[in-house]
Amino acid sequence: MTTLPRAARELLESARLGHIVTLSTDGAPHVTCVWVGVDGDEIVTGHLSRYQKLRNIERDPRVALSVATGRLGEHGLEEYLVINGQARITEGGAAELLQRLAYRYMGPDPAFPPPNPPSGYVLRITVDRITGVGPWAGGPGD
Amino acid sequence: MTTLPRAARELLESARLGHIVTLSTDGAPHVTCVWVGVDGDEIVTGHLSRYQKLRNIERDPRVALSVATGRLGEHGLEEYLVINGQARITEGGAAELLQRLAYRYMGPDPAFPPPNPPSGYVLRITVDRITGVGPWAGGPGD
Repeated sequence: MTTLPRAARELLESARLGHIVTLSTDGAPHVTCVWVGVDGDEIVTGHLSRYQKLRNIERDPRVALSVATGRLGEHGLEEYLVINGQARITEGGAAELLQRLAYRYMGPDPAFPPPNPPSGYVLRITVDRITGVGPWAGGPGD
Repeated sequence: MTTLPRAARELLESARLGHIVTLSTDGAPHVTCVWVGVDGDEIVTGHLSRYQKLRNIERDPRVALSVATGRLGEHGLEEYLVINGQARITEGGAAELLQRLAYRYMGPDPAFPPPNPPSGYVLRITVDRITGVGPWAGGPGD
């Protein structure tokens, strides 16, 4: 497991959308976008239903998560973070996590989650490798 | 092959960064961010070197490409596009494509590509499936 560098942590907590990749039954990449939070050195996401990405992770825990910064770096190219890691699913806690993230992603008085949400699932991602373009990566994308 | 809906095409031509997923030798997802262009119903990206994503595609042409809009949709969630498709590599043409995209992504008088760039490779992606959250998708992400 890899520790999250400070710049990567700040980006992950800055309300930029995360693109999460899981692997479908046939090994093809399955991508959705998610709100992301950080808990210690793990990345956390909340899910009110047992979506395909969760079923994919039950079969194969390998995930990738990428976040673009919206900022141009020194060469005029937009910086971005890529995490490769292992995900595990824990039951419950999604509504609370999404409520907390909704203030960040939607602003004050967010209309999400809906009233009386299910407890859902929290995805916890441990970091194996950090790449991309930015202070968290050694070189340009490959 | 699927035709690109107008809203998806407009997003792909709007200088938002694309997150491209290929499959590594061991089947794990490999993600980098790229500038994207559209040519007919294909998505095109330019590469000055034979990067890992190109080597991955030579072995397995399945790719996913996702683009976040930066705009909140009707439910207050940021809209995004996900393309699943097949990529093929064509030799040459990368410098011209990147030059054209640089005006869009970097602004006037872009410092990219560098002088006397190699001709490189152009990746052409045909679309199998369109998902995400937005006018191009039937429902929320899964």
